[in-house]
Amino acid sequence: MERTTPSYGLLLSLLFCLLSCVSARPEPKYAWARERLHKGLVKSASLKPRWANYTTSELASSCAEALAANASAPNSDYEAASVAKWLFGQTELNLTASEDAGSWDNAVLLIELMQPNKSEVIPYIDGDATAPARYAHVVLDNMATDEPHYADILVGPLPVQNGTTTWQPLEYPYTKQAGGKVRNLDADHDLLSEWRYNVSATVSDITLDLWGGTALGLDNDTLDIWGLDPYTQEDGRITSWVTYWNYQTDDFDAETLLPLGLFFKCDLTGRDSSQWKLEGWLYNDIYYPTTESFRAAYYSPGFVKLKANVEGDWARTDQQGPIPPLDTAYPPTAVAPTGSRYKVDVEHKYVEWMDFSFYVSFSRDTGMALHDIKYKGQRILYELGLQEALAHYAGNDPVQSGTSYLDSYYGFGPYAFELVKGYDCPAYATYLNTTFYVAETTHTHLNSLCLYEFETDYAIQRHSTSSYVSVTKNIQFSIRSVCTVGNYDYMFTYTFNMDGSIGVEVRASGYIQSAHYAANGDYGYQIHDSLSGSMHDHVLNYKADFDILGTNNTMQLTTPVPVEDTSRMFWGDNGATQFTVVNTDQPNKYGEYRGYRILPSQGVCHLTVLNSFNLLNAANWATHDIMVTQHHDTEPRSAHPYNSQDVADPPVDFARFFDGESLVREDLVVWFNLRMHHIPHTGDLPNTVFTTAHSGVRFMPLNYLLGDPSRETVNMVRINYNDGNVSSVKTFGQKDEECVVDFEPAEPELWDYVVIRKFPYDPEDWYYETEAIV
Amino acid sequence: MERTTPSYGLLLSLLFCLLSCVSARPEPKYAWARERLHKGLVKSASLKPRWANYTTSELASSCAEALAANASAPNSDYEAASVAKWLFGQTELNLTASEDAGSWDNAVLLIELMQPNKSEVIPYIDGDATAPARYAHVVLDNMATDEPHYADILVGPLPVQNGTTTWQPLEYPYTKQAGGKVRNLDADHDLLSEWRYNVSATVSDITLDLWGGTALGLDNDTLDIWGLDPYTQEDGRITSWVTYWNYQTDDFDAETLLPLGLFFKCDLTGRDSSQWKLEGWLYNDIYYPTTESFRAAYYSPGFVKLKANVEGDWARTDQQGPIPPLDTAYPPTAVAPTGSRYKVDVEHKYVEWMDFSFYVSFSRDTGMALHDIKYKGQRILYELGLQEALAHYAGNDPVQSGTSYLDSYYGFGPYAFELVKGYDCPAYATYLNTTFYVAETTHTHLNSLCLYEFETDYAIQRHSTSSYVSVTKNIQFSIRSVCTVGNYDYMFTYTFNMDGSIGVEVRASGYIQSAHYAANGDYGYQIHDSLSGSMHDHVLNYKADFDILGTNNTMQLTTPVPVEDTSRMFWGDNGATQFTVVNTDQPNKYGEYRGYRILPSQGVCHLTVLNSFNLLNAANWATHDIMVTQHHDTEPRSAHPYNSQDVADPPVDFARFFDGESLVREDLVVWFNLRMHHIPHTGDLPNTVFTTAHSGVRFMPLNYLLGDPSRETVNMVRINYNDGNVSSVKTFGQKDEECVVDFEPAEPELWDYVVIRKFPYDPEDWYYETEAIV
Repeated sequence: MERTTPSYGLLLSLLFCLLSCVSARPEPKYAWARERLHKGLVKSASLKPRWANYTTSELASSCAEALAANASAPNSDYEAASVAKWLFGQTELNLTASEDAGSWDNAVLLIELMQPNKSEVIPYIDGDATAPARYAHVVLDNMATDEPHYADILVGPLPVQNGTTTWQPLEYPYTKQAGGKVRNLDADHDLLSEWRYNVSATVSDITLDLWGGTALGLDNDTLDIWGLDPYTQEDGRITSWVTYWNYQTDDFDAETLLPLGLFFKCDLTGRDSSQWKLEGWLYNDIYYPTTESFRAAYYSPGFVKLKANVEGDWARTDQQGPIPPLDTAYPPTAVAPTGSRYKVDVEHKYVEWMDFSFYVSFSRDTGMALHDIKYKGQRILYELGLQEALAHYAGNDPVQSGTSYLDSYYGFGPYAFELVKGYDCPAYATYLNTTFYVAETTHTHLNSLCLYEFETDYAIQRHSTSSYVSVTKNIQFSIRSVCTVGNYDYMFTYTFNMDGSIGVEVRASGYIQSAHYAANGDYGYQIHDSLSGSMHDHVLNYKADFDILGTNNTMQLTTPVPVEDTSRMFWGDNGATQFTVVNTDQPNKYGEYRGYRILPSQGVCHLTVLNSFNLLNAANWATHDIMVTQHHDTEPRSAHPYNSQDVADPPVDFARFFDGESLVREDLVVWFNLRMHHIPHTGDLPNTVFTTAHSGVRFMPLNYLLGDPSRETVNMVRINYNDGNVSSVKTFGQKDEECVVDFEPAEPELWDYVVIRKFPYDPEDWYYETEAIV
Repeated sequence: MERTTPSYGLLLSLLFCLLSCVSARPEPKYAWARERLHKGLVKSASLKPRWANYTTSELASSCAEALAANASAPNSDYEAASVAKWLFGQTELNLTASEDAGSWDNAVLLIELMQPNKSEVIPYIDGDATAPARYAHVVLDNMATDEPHYADILVGPLPVQNGTTTWQPLEYPYTKQAGGKVRNLDADHDLLSEWRYNVSATVSDITLDLWGGTALGLDNDTLDIWGLDPYTQEDGRITSWVTYWNYQTDDFDAETLLPLGLFFKCDLTGRDSSQWKLEGWLYNDIYYPTTESFRAAYYSPGFVKLKANVEGDWARTDQQGPIPPLDTAYPPTAVAPTGSRYKVDVEHKYVEWMDFSFYVSFSRDTGMALHDIKYKGQRILYELGLQEALAHYAGNDPVQSGTSYLDSYYGFGPYAFELVKGYDCPAYATYLNTTFYVAETTHTHLNSLCLYEFETDYAIQRHSTSSYVSVTKNIQFSIRSVCTVGNYDYMFTYTFNMDGSIGVEVRASGYIQSAHYAANGDYGYQIHDSLSGSMHDHVLNYKADFDILGTNNTMQLTTPVPVEDTSRMFWGDNGATQFTVVNTDQPNKYGEYRGYRILPSQGVCHLTVLNSFNLLNAANWATHDIMVTQHHDTEPRSAHPYNSQDVADPPVDFARFFDGESLVREDLVVWFNLRMHHIPHTGDLPNTVFTTAHSGVRFMPLNYLLGDPSRETVNMVRINYNDGNVSSVKTFGQKDEECVVDFEPAEPELWDYVVIRKFPYDPEDWYYETEAIV
């Protein structure tokens, strides 16, 4: 068996991981957060996948051995800065530095390395082709125009050299052929915010009477106003509903549990705010076409006032209630007596665990992704990563019913913050940093990725007979990041197993976005005095670019009943159908096709609402469970961060990937959805729990090898017995000395959590960022 | 909040757990095992749920505290012996002691405590009613007749007293009203075995030529013959197909991987073996109506001889192949620095962990079950346990296509053997024994149940903001048994969680039952030289007798689309429907119904073959995903261990539980299936792996409390930060001293695995049994 070392590690890391620079002005989630951003309450952030630091778990164990966790110092590079400098030299771009840019200026929103085309990468890493040229992917926020738009452009080749470097519109990765441009519906957010506060000011008497507060954009506001995402885009008009929320009264991030049940609708079409219109008010399911009619009703006898949602312990996550018996004693926990049994090349973002290897990248839009996943020296997956996450709400109220967050608009990268050792991941895990540029500043999120081995509480294999028992430990390896995108904390985990399988999992915790209970009974349970647990679907789309023994792959459906092959499918009644990516050119010695099966683990299905008015064509990846296409360089991703800006005609309409192309003996990409139907109940207060908010699939080898590869581990035992006595205990070379492990509760170290360094920008002196969490 | 102690623990343990005695002659799985049993190769065993021993994990930790794992010595009781003695005094039963009983004698097969009726138990434990009378449930194997049959009878009341104790046929728990009798198709197994060896002898020349061996019932046989289960029961005839297997050549239990592809059919109707008939041979998909025609063909030119399946390393579970990198270093593992944080009352089989409590029983038919599961002092489930497990095969060969094992025929109890510490369960788990009578002998399976707490590798809750991060550890508690029923090892686990949820899981490992590859391509992958991974469904039926705030319960279906309520349902397209058992009489303060939701976790579906000719009416619980009935004392179990003996008219036909009865505000029982579609591939060699052979559901509180109860634990942290510095680390009373834990690899202790004590019977001197594993 071949056990390869990374001969082209540097190249791949350059191609996938060492994105030369990422510069972004973030778009925080939820309108209320967006508002706060522009009020200066929230700092902006984005991500760059250069790990400035490598943290080994410090071992205090007499079992510890010197293992080969190969850490090297990061090389600081100035590529992003050089691209930014070059861009500012291109006068036709009419750029303004981020610090100075207003709503009628053009700014640089993002600079990252353009992921190279697979068609160029594969010949290079597998053959003798030359390295593909490297380009920067830049997003410009062109607002110095009556038609503000985002513009994707390519700059290169890199490194920047005067005379050879050019820029060009980036269009080929998108289904919409519009020169890489998509309209920006949010260019005038400052003005819009002011306009909405002015609307709110017209009912200050009412909000004071109802809730003792106002939403005026002032520091002493106790009310917040924000509305739906995406904006409603219909018949050339851009409209939105806005609603009132109580601010939380302390540290706890409870605002999304505090809706107040008053809504107003506005028409925000165009950049001329004098043309914007208040279109009416909604309260207690009654619509008032004007402020006057609302006020008249409000001061009329018999007007029904709804009870407000007010923060209390019910919305706070701290310990409360009677402490369960024996709970204050140390619970069991995992320890790593030998330290790490895997290799991490921090410079090249390359990981080896047992017979698996892979590269890790991290991007602003979608966070962590894995590349060139090999098992026993053979590539299995060229690319594996999140594409987009949708949270589609329903409700009687216009904000809930109109809300369908497409989270890559905000980006997952900027919201992957420091993990809490011993809580988010085992204390002994390897923690890596992610760094990124924001508006000419380098930011670092310390310890925001973790990698660790773990012994599950069940074996991987066992059998007993009258003469022996054989059992093998199930040791697995995981890489994880947690992204807090607004109210929700998404835990993303990839897990590798000794049976050759790979798990893809997401769990969700954090605060739900709720609704006022008034008349919302059909769309959620009443979960507090005036609160409805607004029902919604989470659908998370993943790309799995399988390369099973090369790129000539076929999707094999195995089912006891006839099915019709199509390229977009449902998991099938009764879990009957098995989906396997196979290579039919290289069957095994028995003539069976070697492949990887895509095994549903939990909650793998599609969006409930198949023809969402909110989304139109912006999330056509959500309509099926599992979708297969040929790989095309022109279809690198199923979504675009700004799909929400033009839902009818978005930059990437995934439905247009499907044209009846052959899926037999082709380079296949599998797109699949993880999903959680979420009808929040009282148990979601104060936070949703990771235990039940969980979805996953597992890729398992199917006829891929000639036997179960977990037989290779020594972490097994066979006990033989005979005539009532144990005759032998076979441990296969496992060590068996006793030793001592310091049991060190994580808490004292938690004082080391998060360091923030301030401006000015110095690439050698990282800026550690936490404040972009909203 | 009320935290109850078990005031009626003794009673419940008497009712459920301290089954006065269990006596059984086991029926080992698979015909080949049955044969071996009667050849004396396999000892017989069954189970009694009296734990003779209590094992605390021995702690070597400076963190250790004196926790309240309350162990008390078992009281030895002689109730089973007294019932047996009484039975032998009833001359009309015409009983013969097991040691002496032949195939024309009546014997006592089982003595166990009759589970009392819920209608009598609930008034007693919840009120002031008197304790229900206790009865022994006895199964007689009445073979001293032309119509051999099993007879369920009741003996009581207990304790046995001359003059008051009587016996009566036991009929009321069965849908078939036949005086508690079901025919015994296997009464003449010794004779049948001999008859089949005689058939085999007629082709010894051929088996020697093909495989160098014979199947003659001799000690030096290298071939085994056994056939399908259940027997084919059609038109008053009992027929079977028998096939040849290579014996394994060493310790490894590989026989079910070594089919040879030769089959013969026999008509076994009646007890007169002179009327039994050989009905033909099948080889390489060609049918020969007589031995002569088979022989003639065999010695004809051009006869195609199939390649045999022969044992090799491919069928052995020991370490083999290159050891993966760093694998010989200690992997991470879990430790329990404080010891146990739960209470186990061994005498009463009563367990308390955090706010959960329950009783444990163990029976011959179905192994471990839980009773009176309470959460925060309120009963949630009156009973939770396995009912039956089906393994339904398919194939072109008549043995595979006719095989549909109903495992409670063999019983799960007798096959729950000693767990391997540190492999089957964490080394620090509490291990309990199970004991049982077999043929006037008391047997004990040491350490055959385990209970343990475990910290998962993910949190139960987390949220981060710009000013704090809050994370809570996910500590769970599990009870587990592993039953090796023939070739398969079923791991049964119930898991309790701090969010109030309860997991029900089964995983499968061990050896598959395979088929010869000849012409079986439509029914399985070819997985070795001459081997087909015979496709099959595992379906495991569970009973969950919910009592949500009493017994007036209703099944609430919540789904975005209209569904028709019925009592037997499928999980529904796209996972859309939520199934919740609620109490509509006691809504919460918001008017929502408090309940427990049944959340599919993995692989919850029904049998693929809905009209199995093999099963007819013997497994009608397998046709749907989730089934709801009113609780009736007359319907305690969905199956009967001898359903396989009369599949058309079995003792319990689950379909007859359904008569349109009201399911609104009634005492509901939910019957649900866990399932694994299994199309074995090369990765199932040598053993199926627990990682992917996995099915489960989770019962989660839905609007049951007013908030998430995991907020009560102190095992959480909140880190506050401000201006770049950590301002506080709140640990809520968690201890934070460092201490030292001895890391002690489990292997040295494994020499203590299994002790066998021999006859004679002495209830004070336990007989430790391992050899009933087949």
